[in-house]
Amino acid sequence: MEFITIIGLAAGFCTTAAFLPQAIKTWKTKSAKDLSLGMYLIFCTGVLLWLTYGILISDLPIILTNLATIILAVSILYFKLSYND
Amino acid sequence: MEFITIIGLAAGFCTTAAFLPQAIKTWKTKSAKDLSLGMYLIFCTGVLLWLTYGILISDLPIILTNLATIILAVSILYFKLSYND
Repeated sequence: MEFITIIGLAAGFCTTAAFLPQAIKTWKTKSAKDLSLGMYLIFCTGVLLWLTYGILISDLPIILTNLATIILAVSILYFKLSYND
Repeated sequence: MEFITIIGLAAGFCTTAAFLPQAIKTWKTKSAKDLSLGMYLIFCTGVLLWLTYGILISDLPIILTNLATIILAVSILYFKLSYND
């Protein structure tokens, strides 16, 4: 595998996996006061648009990474709405 | 401009702009207890890798969107480390 491809895959892995510790933390602490509702509303919209884009251009890496991200981001949005204060 | 390109640009705009309300909220409230340090450490690493990837493949949209994202994400990481509790 080319070096550039490895950099791209590592980048995609990090920006997707990053949401896992936030989802776990919010689920465990049941506290989401400091999380921005606006951020997660805009972010989830963006990831849905990326997913649509990936489907339209038939790009499997874009589809798969954004599927994983949307699951985590929607979970955090749900926690934000549930445990707001 | 093609419809698919507009979807892609809207997607990139949302997943970058999403971090602005979080940065503003954390800066105003000076409270970052509920933010996951792990998330912002992994996320900033990922965005730096995206930036490297964009430079390596000479892709201006990847470079520009990730430059904007890194400024916002590093600001939130700085607030997290400054106002932890």
